[in-house]
Amino acid sequence: MKAMVLNQYGDEAQFELAEIKTPDVSSGQVLIQVAASSVNTVDTMIKQLGENLPFSPQLPALLGMDVAGTVAAVADDVTNFKVGDEVYGCAGGLASLSGSLADFMPADTRLIAHKPKNLSMAQAAALPLVGITAFEGLHRAGIAQGQKVLVHGGAGGVGHIAVQLARYFGADVYTTIGRDEHVALVENLGATAINYRSSAVEEYVDQYTGGEGFDVIFDSVGGANMSNSFLAAKLNGQIASTVALLEMDLSLVHMKGLSLHIVFMLIQMIHNVRREEHAHILTELAKIAEAGHLTPILDDSNYTLEQVNQAYARLSSGQATGKVVIIND
Amino acid sequence: MKAMVLNQYGDEAQFELAEIKTPDVSSGQVLIQVAASSVNTVDTMIKQLGENLPFSPQLPALLGMDVAGTVAAVADDVTNFKVGDEVYGCAGGLASLSGSLADFMPADTRLIAHKPKNLSMAQAAALPLVGITAFEGLHRAGIAQGQKVLVHGGAGGVGHIAVQLARYFGADVYTTIGRDEHVALVENLGATAINYRSSAVEEYVDQYTGGEGFDVIFDSVGGANMSNSFLAAKLNGQIASTVALLEMDLSLVHMKGLSLHIVFMLIQMIHNVRREEHAHILTELAKIAEAGHLTPILDDSNYTLEQVNQAYARLSSGQATGKVVIIND
Repeated sequence: MKAMVLNQYGDEAQFELAEIKTPDVSSGQVLIQVAASSVNTVDTMIKQLGENLPFSPQLPALLGMDVAGTVAAVADDVTNFKVGDEVYGCAGGLASLSGSLADFMPADTRLIAHKPKNLSMAQAAALPLVGITAFEGLHRAGIAQGQKVLVHGGAGGVGHIAVQLARYFGADVYTTIGRDEHVALVENLGATAINYRSSAVEEYVDQYTGGEGFDVIFDSVGGANMSNSFLAAKLNGQIASTVALLEMDLSLVHMKGLSLHIVFMLIQMIHNVRREEHAHILTELAKIAEAGHLTPILDDSNYTLEQVNQAYARLSSGQATGKVVIIND
Repeated sequence: MKAMVLNQYGDEAQFELAEIKTPDVSSGQVLIQVAASSVNTVDTMIKQLGENLPFSPQLPALLGMDVAGTVAAVADDVTNFKVGDEVYGCAGGLASLSGSLADFMPADTRLIAHKPKNLSMAQAAALPLVGITAFEGLHRAGIAQGQKVLVHGGAGGVGHIAVQLARYFGADVYTTIGRDEHVALVENLGATAINYRSSAVEEYVDQYTGGEGFDVIFDSVGGANMSNSFLAAKLNGQIASTVALLEMDLSLVHMKGLSLHIVFMLIQMIHNVRREEHAHILTELAKIAEAGHLTPILDDSNYTLEQVNQAYARLSSGQATGKVVIIND
């Protein structure tokens, strides 16, 4: 089969077209004929850092986590999928999991679900990693109807899904953005836009919560931005964050008695634990999408499998609005 | 009435006997004739740091949070308590809340409950602050039957209550101690003892969880010890900690996808929010105590109200085993 592989890691490394053996399906797997995949920040980190990340594939590396496509073969012990089913998931591109930047990809059935019927293959391929991340974070933060929820980075890949899910769960949603041209985008998703460049945390906490703070904060920016989340949370509030690879002063977390949930959705894939949780979440996300409450936004770029290098460059440029997808010919 | 008051703050300051006006009861309050109180670490911090803590009372200061006693008067709008009721709670000793180091103490009825019938006044006075802290932490960490729970500091004030509550909730409980003479104490409470001075975290994680890590960690030591909690937690595990006034490297929290809950039980008192939660927890704790599953351990010291200075010195010495209580004459 055709695949785009990395023969070395690093900023300057390029994906190269290769003809490789089509994978067999092992116990518990299906073989997916890939229709589309999408690029995530963690993919660009793996490309850049390679062996310095404990979960990177060995070289030559076949990356690609997100996938949407059609089942082409099933293992003997698989009963919940059949040849011809349209599926989606986040199931490859890690140390022991073959990636989606190819014609075919084997996938653990605990990491996939039936594709939302009303989404295109490209839309479905955009959803798994960011959708599972947003769902897990909001769920662990105990999101409930009527709460005031702040999403940091609501125009981003994870953020724009978190906004839609928080709305679906009945919350009153506010989101920070950094560019005024994103106001309409997040308002269309049902959130109140806050440009963090022109509004201090204390100001928008006063304006939207009467100074009390937000019940739940989904921080898809994470890292040093978590200090803004600590500041914006109400007493005993809940914060979910996707990036915590740093030292943080936790004094405000103490004085406010906060709960901090770090979401690292690759855990189930890397450590092969509780993978069925992902199939469950993907099934829930498909229902929410089919009910019209969840639509991934796609960047207006268009890449084929052979244009993977341009797709990675587009994501890394910071200029994409919505998810960068790759559509197989 | 008689009270032991601080006329200045600081390490060297001493409580002094004073005759002050017996407090009136305001709306929503009862007046408690104090039978016993207990000393907590946060009391010693207030005495030492005074105005440097935002929640310290003004001088002359009447400290004392924990109390057990008999209702001597009730406000007109109070219907759930009557004169003569035996009550307990953590209800004073802060900026706007009169303390328990006196003959009488007014208390918001949302911060007290009926005393466990099978506990002495001294035992009941030992329970509120540490009991609410342990209950809140285990509850927020989602404790459930059959889980493996690690309590850091199981021989301490909060820790020995957390051990008993975790057992009551059906967990398999392990606890760190620093002195071998505490082995019997924590084993009697139903926990497996781990001397952290002789057993590395990786060792006891291997020995007791097969390397997988603990489901829930209640870290009553907190601070820098949290790094041991991060190390001992399983993937997507839950950590409750009582002290987080510091900078911490959160990288392991990220890689393991942990949830961190900081318990600061004074929030309800300081900010006058959701105080009814404390009455609810105290009522639950009373039921658990009356069913024989929760008994606070008292230090074998014995102090009267006039001996408050000795009681504070005893707690600060680090030599107390169990709670230091003060019994009014």
